[in-house]
Amino acid sequence: MKRSFFVLALALNTFPCHADPAAAPPAPNGITLPKDYQNWRLLGVSQRTENGTLRAILGNDKAIEAARSGQTHPWPDGAMLAKVAWKQKSHDKFATAVVPGEYVHTDLMVKDAAKYAATGGWGFARWLGDKFTPYGQDAQFAQECLGCHGAAKDADWVFTTPAKLP
Amino acid sequence: MKRSFFVLALALNTFPCHADPAAAPPAPNGITLPKDYQNWRLLGVSQRTENGTLRAILGNDKAIEAARSGQTHPWPDGAMLAKVAWKQKSHDKFATAVVPGEYVHTDLMVKDAAKYAATGGWGFARWLGDKFTPYGQDAQFAQECLGCHGAAKDADWVFTTPAKLP
Ligand code: HEC
Ligand code: HEC
Repeated sequence: MKRSFFVLALALNTFPCHADPAAAPPAPNGITLPKDYQNWRLLGVSQRTENGTLRAILGNDKAIEAARSGQTHPWPDGAMLAKVAWKQKSHDKFATAVVPGEYVHTDLMVKDAAKYAATGGWGFARWLGDKFTPYGQDAQFAQECLGCHGAAKDADWVFTTPAKLP
Repeated sequence: MKRSFFVLALALNTFPCHADPAAAPPAPNGITLPKDYQNWRLLGVSQRTENGTLRAILGNDKAIEAARSGQTHPWPDGAMLAKVAWKQKSHDKFATAVVPGEYVHTDLMVKDAAKYAATGGWGFARWLGDKFTPYGQDAQFAQECLGCHGAAKDADWVFTTPAKLP
C-alpha cells in the first residue's frame, strides 16, 4: 500500500520541493523529528571551519526556558535541541558576508535522563538532506555522536552555550 | 524625575545584568526595539569575515509567513527583521567550531512602504551593546544603512535569503 502510494506520487510528481518534517522516517533508535522544530527559538549559531558549514541551534520551549533561567547543568527532561547545518557560501552581493548555501542535515538531541541513560541522558538523531534520510545503520550510530560530545561532558554533553540575546 | 530614578537605580545597583529590550531607548528616527524580538523565529545566519562576527537573522510572524510563502518581493508592510551580531571565537572544547563571543549589536528593519518611503520602504535602527545605546546622532544615520543595503535593492533592500529549513 505504502509502496503503491509512493509510485503514484512519483508518477503524478506530487512530492513537494520542500520536504515536510512530519514525513521524516524515525532514526534507527526510534527518535522522530518534531514536526514543528522549524518554529523553535534560537539558542545559538556556529560555523565549522573543518567542513565549511554554518549552523543554527534551536531549542523547544522547555530548552529555551531552561537556557534563559540558567538551568542547564543538567538540562531538564523534555528539553530538545536541534541543529540545522548548511554549506557556507559567499553572498553574491557582498563578498565578505558568509551565508547559508545548500542544506546539509538536521541534528536532534532529546533529554530524558532515565530513558537515554546509556547515552549520557540524551537521545541523538540526525536526518540528511531534504529527503530526511535517517543517519546510521542501527542504534549504535549514537556512539559516534556521544564519542565527540564527550568533550562537552562537563556541560551535560552540550557544546552550545546559549548565546546572549539581550 | 527620570534622572533621579536613574541615580537611585545606580545607587541601589538595581540594574539587571541582562538588559531588557523593553528598556532600549528609541533610535534617533523614533523606531523602538520590539520587546519580544528574542522570541522571533529564524530567517538565517551569517558570518562577516571583514569584522569577525557571527549573526542570526530573526523575523516577526509577518516576516516568517512572508518568507515561507515566498512573498518577499516586496516584503509586506508590518514585516520586521532583526539581526543580532556577536564577536566570533573558537569553541574552547572544539577548536574548529566558531561560536558567539561578546554581544555587539542588534539591528532592526521595519517594513512600511508609505511611512518609510524615503528609505526604501524600510525603517532602520541599531542598538549597541547590552545598554542598548541607539546608533546615530540624528535620523540621518539611516543613510549609512541604506547606502550599503542599496546593493540588495533588487531584493527589496534585504540581503538575507531566508535559509532553507526543510
Ligand atoms: C566530530 C565531532 C562531533 C560529532 C561526531 C557529532 N557532533 Fe554534535 N556537535 C559537535 C560540536 C563541536 C557542536 C557545537 C558546534 C556546532 O554547532 O557545530 C555540536 C553540536 C550539536 C548539537 C547542538 C547542541 C550542542 O551540543 O551544541 C546537536 C543537536 C548535535 N551536535 C547532535 C549531534 C548528533 C545527533 C550527532 C551524531 C549523529 C553528533 N552531534 C555528532 C561535534 C560533534
Ligand atoms: C557595510 C555594509 C552595511 C551597512 C553600512 C549596513 N548593513 Fe545591514 N547588512 C549588510 C549585509 C551584507 C547584511 C547581510 C549579511 C549579514 O547578515 O551581515 C546585512 C543585514 C542586515 C539585516 C538583516 C536583513 C538583511 O537585509 O539581510 C538588518 C536588519 C540590517 N542589516 C540592518 C542594518 C542597519 C539598521 C544598518 C545601519 C545602522 C545597516 N544594516 C548597515 C550590510 C550592511
